[in-house]
Amino acid sequence: MTTSKTTRQDCVAQDQADPLRGLKDQFALPPGVIYLDGNSLGVLPKATATRVQAVITQEWGTDLIKSWNTAHWMELPARVGDKIARLVGAAPGEVIAADSTSLNLYKVLSAGIRIAQADAPGRTTIVSERSNFPTDLYIAESLCQQHGMTLRLIDSVDELPAALDADLAVLMLTQVNYRTGYQHDMTAVTAAAHAAGALVIWDLAHSAGAVPVDLTGANADFAIGCGYKYLNGGPGAPAFVWAHPRHVNRFWQPLSGWLGHSAPFQFTPDYQPAAGITRYICGTPAILALAALECGVDTVLAAEPLGGMAALRQKSVALTECFIELAEERCAELGVRLASPREAAQRGSQVCLSLAAPLHEAGYAVIQALIARGVIGDFRAGDPARLDEVPHILRFGFTPLYIGFADVWDAVEHLRQVLASSEWKEARFNQKASVT
Amino acid sequence: MTTSKTTRQDCVAQDQADPLRGLKDQFALPPGVIYLDGNSLGVLPKATATRVQAVITQEWGTDLIKSWNTAHWMELPARVGDKIARLVGAAPGEVIAADSTSLNLYKVLSAGIRIAQADAPGRTTIVSERSNFPTDLYIAESLCQQHGMTLRLIDSVDELPAALDADLAVLMLTQVNYRTGYQHDMTAVTAAAHAAGALVIWDLAHSAGAVPVDLTGANADFAIGCGYKYLNGGPGAPAFVWAHPRHVNRFWQPLSGWLGHSAPFQFTPDYQPAAGITRYICGTPAILALAALECGVDTVLAAEPLGGMAALRQKSVALTECFIELAEERCAELGVRLASPREAAQRGSQVCLSLAAPLHEAGYAVIQALIARGVIGDFRAGDPARLDEVPHILRFGFTPLYIGFADVWDAVEHLRQVLASSEWKEARFNQKASVT
Repeated sequence: MTTSKTTRQDCVAQDQADPLRGLKDQFALPPGVIYLDGNSLGVLPKATATRVQAVITQEWGTDLIKSWNTAHWMELPARVGDKIARLVGAAPGEVIAADSTSLNLYKVLSAGIRIAQADAPGRTTIVSERSNFPTDLYIAESLCQQHGMTLRLIDSVDELPAALDADLAVLMLTQVNYRTGYQHDMTAVTAAAHAAGALVIWDLAHSAGAVPVDLTGANADFAIGCGYKYLNGGPGAPAFVWAHPRHVNRFWQPLSGWLGHSAPFQFTPDYQPAAGITRYICGTPAILALAALECGVDTVLAAEPLGGMAALRQKSVALTECFIELAEERCAELGVRLASPREAAQRGSQVCLSLAAPLHEAGYAVIQALIARGVIGDFRAGDPARLDEVPHILRFGFTPLYIGFADVWDAVEHLRQVLASSEWKEARFNQKASVT
Repeated sequence: MTTSKTTRQDCVAQDQADPLRGLKDQFALPPGVIYLDGNSLGVLPKATATRVQAVITQEWGTDLIKSWNTAHWMELPARVGDKIARLVGAAPGEVIAADSTSLNLYKVLSAGIRIAQADAPGRTTIVSERSNFPTDLYIAESLCQQHGMTLRLIDSVDELPAALDADLAVLMLTQVNYRTGYQHDMTAVTAAAHAAGALVIWDLAHSAGAVPVDLTGANADFAIGCGYKYLNGGPGAPAFVWAHPRHVNRFWQPLSGWLGHSAPFQFTPDYQPAAGITRYICGTPAILALAALECGVDTVLAAEPLGGMAALRQKSVALTECFIELAEERCAELGVRLASPREAAQRGSQVCLSLAAPLHEAGYAVIQALIARGVIGDFRAGDPARLDEVPHILRFGFTPLYIGFADVWDAVEHLRQVLASSEWKEARFNQKASVT
């Protein structure tokens, strides 16, 4: 073999040449940790503690109810929404930050179903993927029961073209799969679904802040997303919701709380939805959580002068390519297999690995051993009955805001050492210590 | 007149003799402020800033995703729910803290409608009060549309007995009215509705932490409530939800997110609701907000060794009686009229005043002038077309945890001075300065 191999020194040099390297200074990363789980919970921005403290002690503690006006609390869902809009190809005033991803999906899928029932009453199928994040499927199951629709789950992306049939009302997909990191081509899939006469709802939980998204350019119908992954909004942060302007005013969304009303402070007994995305607000905004989310979104917007999401994506691809190359080069003979798409365009900002027999079952223990070494990824169980098709997965997220190339090199070296030793077998006996 | 009148000295003496006076030390009240708006936004507990800071910097910042287990984040909705349960007469495991009041109402009213449709399919009416807080009516309007039910609004409590008819499926009431402070007799109304064959949902937004509530003793069916008023959970704090054990497992609630699933971490594609109140959880818990809410609930539980809600209620009644007495004695000739029930048993922990002609319209300006003096109440507009029946209201909440009798005396004196001078006329020209 004469191919030149990537050395740790190469990675250090790449970090030194990285125009985005300064963005890491925005975060309070614990020392000695290589955090490859930003796809589950983003790290703490340094600004957050100070900002939330000010909201608590000054805005709430001292100014009390005046802050609804003087601190612009009432505008927070729209203000944070406008910032998120810049990351997902939406216009100002088209996104609000509120509630959870599940709740926002309930709102947009209800609206999508009602629009489909009005415009194409013969269409009674909602299509999604069996591998979609379960909460999306649970919400769809509830709404299908309610509206007499059928939820059809496809088992692989290859089945998607055939599912775009005359029964299809709404196609509901998560752009980047939470397990495998598979990334749909939003523009192509949306166009195909529209050509088939259906609406498309995109869940951007693993996209917003991770990959460039252009909802307007893709002509999508509805979108939702998560605040606590790549947007660094904190545990259980508010989520966001977008509706295309052609749809937003057509129907109520059913969670018709008072702050989605056109004139909430007139306290009228009958509901009159606000124009635009404001009607997707339900109850009183969660101020502390929204303040933290805003700090998180700001860490991503800080990349705008450096090329924004395109630059972050370029680095993210370089990081994941580097990880795949090194993991295969250094750990393949120890049983490591790639479980994410090899093609960068089909991959989000994460890489999943599985372990070949006889290590099929060792994934959880290996992740625990890595965590003990300060390399934090996570584990997603496969299907015990058919581990060849749905293996246990070691999941590693690469947030380009705070992960560098030397981190990638070090993570692979830790993985190699864990697998080459008996360390993971010891970790296995400590399974209860930390279920991540 | 020879009746002895209450003096400020009497009030100071009452404060000195008050066994609950030490509870005020739990709060970071701004100096020089008499805060009579805890029914809108409770004040900041001293513990909150430190606790939220620890959650941010230690649990999130340092321990990251491990905290879902090590910091028991996943248990927060139930742990805070169990604490709230102690304030509303529910058993441990029967309450969870999550989402907003509006969203929780959507969950329980959906369940209530489905139970009614199963058990009494001929009943198609939801009854509430036109004066109920609008978000409750908007949510009911949405669900009535969805389920083919009719929302019937009564204009006064006197109409309630006649509304308990053979059409009634669910009676949906807020126990303490947000505008007038009128308090329903939960036990009597629940019994009457049950005798008429209907279910009852209680909104405890202005009850929890304000008046003794015994959901179990009253044999209520469902309840929800707010975290940011008398529970001092912070702006937009999570709300809570309770379902009677006889109902809780009968149906899904429709907001069937992954954390209401019986085994969320098995990531199965089909929804299987958890047993008990856990199924009323939807998405990922809002950790920062729940941590703040827990600190707020703890301030109310701190009264338990001193007699708990019964002792707080006793003081609350004494405070509101004192306020009414002093306001009528000292301000009646200036146009002040009582707009809350005079009977303490029919009143929550707030007192509303209105202004007689020719000061009908002056309420907003008077509240602004009071705020400028550090006496914070709020204003709720009446019906401009019939101010005699639905007057503008000056609303004053008396949270016995941090309000004392001298505060009451001083508040009335400020009100008297504002009305006796032209101060409120000046405030009126500054209306835009602060819309509370």
